[in-house]
Amino acid sequence: MAGYRYLTFLTDYGLEDGFVAACHGVAARIRPGVRIIDITHLVPPGDVRRGAIVLAQTIPYLPPGVHVAVVDPGVGTARRGVAVAAGEHVFVGPDNGLLSWAVREAAGDGPVRAHELTNEELWLHPVSATFHGRDIFMPVAAHLAGGTALEEVGRPLPPEDLMLLPPPVRRIRDGAAEGEVLTVDRFGNVQLSVTAADLEQVGVRAGEPMLLSLSRRRLTVPYRRTFGSVTPGELVAYADSAGCIALAVNTGNAAQRLGLPPGARVRIAPAP
Amino acid sequence: MAGYRYLTFLTDYGLEDGFVAACHGVAARIRPGVRIIDITHLVPPGDVRRGAIVLAQTIPYLPPGVHVAVVDPGVGTARRGVAVAAGEHVFVGPDNGLLSWAVREAAGDGPVRAHELTNEELWLHPVSATFHGRDIFMPVAAHLAGGTALEEVGRPLPPEDLMLLPPPVRRIRDGAAEGEVLTVDRFGNVQLSVTAADLEQVGVRAGEPMLLSLSRRRLTVPYRRTFGSVTPGELVAYADSAGCIALAVNTGNAAQRLGLPPGARVRIAPAP
Amino acid sequence: MAGYRYLTFLTDYGLEDGFVAACHGVAARIRPGVRIIDITHLVPPGDVRRGAIVLAQTIPYLPPGVHVAVVDPGVGTARRGVAVAAGEHVFVGPDNGLLSWAVREAAGDGPVRAHELTNEELWLHPVSATFHGRDIFMPVAAHLAGGTALEEVGRPLPPEDLMLLPPPVRRIRDGAAEGEVLTVDRFGNVQLSVTAADLEQVGVRAGEPMLLSLSRRRLTVPYRRTFGSVTPGELVAYADSAGCIALAVNTGNAAQRLGLPPGARVRIAPAP
Repeated sequence: MAGYRYLTFLTDYGLEDGFVAACHGVAARIRPGVRIIDITHLVPPGDVRRGAIVLAQTIPYLPPGVHVAVVDPGVGTARRGVAVAAGEHVFVGPDNGLLSWAVREAAGDGPVRAHELTNEELWLHPVSATFHGRDIFMPVAAHLAGGTALEEVGRPLPPEDLMLLPPPVRRIRDGAAEGEVLTVDRFGNVQLSVTAADLEQVGVRAGEPMLLSLSRRRLTVPYRRTFGSVTPGELVAYADSAGCIALAVNTGNAAQRLGLPPGARVRIAPAP
Repeated sequence: MAGYRYLTFLTDYGLEDGFVAACHGVAARIRPGVRIIDITHLVPPGDVRRGAIVLAQTIPYLPPGVHVAVVDPGVGTARRGVAVAAGEHVFVGPDNGLLSWAVREAAGDGPVRAHELTNEELWLHPVSATFHGRDIFMPVAAHLAGGTALEEVGRPLPPEDLMLLPPPVRRIRDGAAEGEVLTVDRFGNVQLSVTAADLEQVGVRAGEPMLLSLSRRRLTVPYRRTFGSVTPGELVAYADSAGCIALAVNTGNAAQRLGLPPGARVRIAPAP
Repeated sequence: MAGYRYLTFLTDYGLEDGFVAACHGVAARIRPGVRIIDITHLVPPGDVRRGAIVLAQTIPYLPPGVHVAVVDPGVGTARRGVAVAAGEHVFVGPDNGLLSWAVREAAGDGPVRAHELTNEELWLHPVSATFHGRDIFMPVAAHLAGGTALEEVGRPLPPEDLMLLPPPVRRIRDGAAEGEVLTVDRFGNVQLSVTAADLEQVGVRAGEPMLLSLSRRRLTVPYRRTFGSVTPGELVAYADSAGCIALAVNTGNAAQRLGLPPGARVRIAPAP
């Protein structure tokens, strides 16, 4: 009966309806006083990949807890619900890949234990066909937070049976680091799958310019410590707070300037 | 001195200003440590009906508590403030109909007790003319959460004197279920005032198609368990998580597709 | 080892990414159970002035606590981080003027104590160049909430060395009150730097009309208690909940009607 003091919560439910609050309420009824940290509820509707990235990049900073994530275009169909323990965390949500990158981040080299959500005694009845966040995932998470053992949520599942998202493109080829746009944040900063280590390997050095190849053009971009290192309006590359290379415009919007949506391919080499 | 552990909070204040936080702060100063669940603060400005629907559909899932709701285009005029006890809940807000559907939902067949907010000793002074959420409703709610008796907030009010919103259109006529659009959620799902029981009564059966009549057109729509039951891009009707019939497009936006805003009329009959 | 029960948090991080949650998580890991009130995270990116206004107008209603504010276009450059104690509050953030109006509001006639954030032992390592909210400001604030003394965050700073924002335009000239638009809220209400006392001084009386001069036109506007005092669609001026004169359209949007963005100049005199 250890349990967890914290729940966290990530969805694509938006903030205009009462969906998020209904889930908070369900948790509070099952485990009064539990603390909930909302990660975000503005994942674009059904965008599992975006949800997976935000969860994986936030998890290293969250307290030990039960992390509920629901971006679930397949709700009510055959896809299963799961609870997955990794490191000091337990993840609860649909088995559609949403949890996979965060689980890997949390597990490190340690073990992963997975269970399918089959114990209906922990659910809220009647169970709706379209709101498993309220009726299944959050109730199960609140019970886990209250000390229910992972084994009690349902039958064990070999971790290798969990669905994985295909990893982002990232490789070194012909002396260049190739990758894709992972996310665009509120500031229009463009986060790439390319890392600082990748750039070092191909000989792009901090303080020196890089050659950035996009689908239809090439730019020379300075590689600095932060967007504030260049003059306002200037484009810059830097290692961001998640350890990825990011493109930014000081006091501007790089995603708009470059026309780079998530998934767009990039190639970086030393400037000639 | 029982009191409540939880407050909940629904407004049209938005999230860009400090209005919501000022109310949270006022509650925290009066009752340190009280827990607040934010239902939503993105009710369209002044849209009392939308606020009433969200509150009523969320309340069954919230813990016993004091529920503050403020969509209040008449703030500072003669409309009164009220506290209304129903079931395990107390509602605090303007008496403009906003609370009425949630009160009915919470009361069931049980009694309703209402008091007008006239005890100025519980308010925050000076009281502004335009921000009663901060200066009246939240302070009163925090005192109620702290154990102040309902009777102390002001003079009793016969519950039948509370303002009611006109109920949504919903009737069976000529072998068809008639209703209106209640809400459109973030996913573009269109929630109707028509229920699954209404459809059963007119002979529309799950798994079979229905004839959906809008103001200018008619469509045949499959009636299934969830939006995931049809192929992506296809329109579907299903009983949603609030027990209403909803129209959705799998991985799409039904409200846009059909041009159906809140209040639009619909008519559903068995497909010929 | 007094400490604070509450943290509050204001940023321009937005709600779509995991940035705010990462900061909440960092605080929870350092000081489990600390309560956080989010003021807003929708300050327009880099708009220090807007952040300063929201913080200063909200602070009177917040509980004693540590208030973290981050609108920080200069992150990673030479600008310093500070912790500033004033009245019952401590403010933590970049020294770029963001905190200055709230500090003045909190201090009243009392003393202000400021320290530069130089004690790296309180930070989260490795410290990123672009996310000091997560790596410096929130960890320091959580330690302060946990009872760490202000002196321990770094070397003392003469309060007069803190950066100040230039105050909003506000003066009496030629029998008129001159000022500027401070903010526009969600409802389109236009808050001016002009106060009710200013209007009284120039002879504009409640209940009587005023002459409002904008850059290209003049209007006669009634001066009432609240926007609900005029008929829907009508323009009105009133003293708002922060003590400023505001312009509103009952059930409408004054900022759109008048084309008045923050910073626009206004002049108010008695109607002839």
